[in-house]
Amino acid sequence: MHTGHDISGAEVDELAAAVLRGEPRAIGRALTVVERSGEPAERLVSILFRSSPWPNVVGITGPPGAGKSTLVDGLAGAARHRGHRVGIIAVDPTSPFTGGAILGDRVRMLRHSTDPGVFIRSMASRRHPGGLAAATAEGVYVLAAAGFDLVLVETVGVGQSEVAVAELAGTTVVVLVPEGGDAIQVLKAGLMEIADIFVVNKSDREGGDRLVAALEETVDFAAPGSRPAVRKTVATVGEGVDRVLDDILAHQLHLVATGAGRRRRERTLRLTIQHLLTRRALRETWFPAEASGLVDALIEQLLQRALSPYEAVERLLGNSGAPA
Amino acid sequence: MHTGHDISGAEVDELAAAVLRGEPRAIGRALTVVERSGEPAERLVSILFRSSPWPNVVGITGPPGAGKSTLVDGLAGAARHRGHRVGIIAVDPTSPFTGGAILGDRVRMLRHSTDPGVFIRSMASRRHPGGLAAATAEGVYVLAAAGFDLVLVETVGVGQSEVAVAELAGTTVVVLVPEGGDAIQVLKAGLMEIADIFVVNKSDREGGDRLVAALEETVDFAAPGSRPAVRKTVATVGEGVDRVLDDILAHQLHLVATGAGRRRRERTLRLTIQHLLTRRALRETWFPAEASGLVDALIEQLLQRALSPYEAVERLLGNSGAPA
Repeated sequence: MHTGHDISGAEVDELAAAVLRGEPRAIGRALTVVERSGEPAERLVSILFRSSPWPNVVGITGPPGAGKSTLVDGLAGAARHRGHRVGIIAVDPTSPFTGGAILGDRVRMLRHSTDPGVFIRSMASRRHPGGLAAATAEGVYVLAAAGFDLVLVETVGVGQSEVAVAELAGTTVVVLVPEGGDAIQVLKAGLMEIADIFVVNKSDREGGDRLVAALEETVDFAAPGSRPAVRKTVATVGEGVDRVLDDILAHQLHLVATGAGRRRRERTLRLTIQHLLTRRALRETWFPAEASGLVDALIEQLLQRALSPYEAVERLLGNSGAPA
Repeated sequence: MHTGHDISGAEVDELAAAVLRGEPRAIGRALTVVERSGEPAERLVSILFRSSPWPNVVGITGPPGAGKSTLVDGLAGAARHRGHRVGIIAVDPTSPFTGGAILGDRVRMLRHSTDPGVFIRSMASRRHPGGLAAATAEGVYVLAAAGFDLVLVETVGVGQSEVAVAELAGTTVVVLVPEGGDAIQVLKAGLMEIADIFVVNKSDREGGDRLVAALEETVDFAAPGSRPAVRKTVATVGEGVDRVLDDILAHQLHLVATGAGRRRRERTLRLTIQHLLTRRALRETWFPAEASGLVDALIEQLLQRALSPYEAVERLLGNSGAPA
């Protein structure tokens, strides 16, 4: 077993070739390398990015408990029937203390375990600001290189990171449930502006029709031509899932036809580069200072109010030999 | 009216002095300066940080629709009765497209408008990774310098940014509602590890007692001595709010007595410096390249797959004259 840390350049090249051949074990290893970042990840992504087409990326987001995983599984199954190869990245909220993902993907893998046309992977967020979106973007490039033409990215929540992940996606599906609050809450959470498709899941529950009606009213305020669809599903029994897939695929084609897809990709790339830049700054300035004890010394001075945070940053930058 | 951008060094010094005297208009202007970042913000924070004590920071988080704003207003009122000066920062989820905050704080200000012992401010997240938490931390320093000894930071959602904001807080209150899902969802969302106090708001609704019982069971798995309290509130009528304030203040004292507060402050400072570092990297490398058209040129090459994102970053760094 190689970890992402001790893999050599030649091994990375070999791994990249195996990913391009679509070997499942290689895909899994490549995602681990990417998750760990560092030199091997950079080399790997550089190769795969250049060799891979733009995948159709669909973001599936919404509050915890909305049934996103079930919907994603259903969409994956339906898309397989139509001949797509489907990659799934489930972005896990991560504890700030343990750094680990809570959800596993083993249970979910079972359903599709005999089908090489589906690949499911949970990715844990990393502690660096922006790390989650950067790792997810790289995961998408890996899956694209491995020949998955449809990549579903599932995220929990409505935070800034989730918005960043939504920017990766050509199509963003926002999943809500009748119990989850009204349309005003949707507006508050900024979901109206990221949603291309609203799905009211568990729509057979009380309040389902009311939420659909409220959403229909709200989307009427959207700009002409960008009015999000509002659909009902009961994902546990597959109801309405095919229709949502229709919407997703139609939206992807719409992105191509209008040029909107290109503009979204541009935005994604800008974001990716910004993330890589900030990550680089941490690697070149923060980590050496942490190792040398400079960070601890600065923190002590900050606790005593002998220094301001900005002055601490000046000291850190004065310390870094490399330009960055 | 000065904007954050054109304020001179001398004016910043004057503004800082007015903040330290607790002048409400100055506090508002200082928060605007901080929100806009840049040189004036750095100068201002450097002065205020050195002059201000550590405030008691309480994070209030939870899904949209949980009634956080109402609870925060109730806590502020109760804390005033006990003689605290209360600052409130409501962190707004921001659209990735407009960059603007959706919620205003005008309506909320009305209730406390005649009381100089309460200051409420919404802060919009910024587009840079980590910007939200950095701006919030600086907002907290401003309020501390202005003499607010209790600062409530209200955030929506359970994303990575919200976790970062939670790290600012000595005490984190997670607000849930009976309709919002079960205890498993709480675990999934990583809330168990950030919560010092769980509040089941709207607890008179169906499922309230069930959620409380499920949470009680779940917190039994917490480490000894760090078992979160589980409380019921009906914030709209003030029920249970005083008890939550008791818990918050007791927890703040616990933080002092055990040294845990110092460890949290260290973590916060580390995070703050990391954010400032990454912001600096963007300012010195990204923005000049954006202005010169280099970013656009690189994006074009990325779209053509003539370059990988890492190679684009190399080009950007090669372009920046200044060491960073």
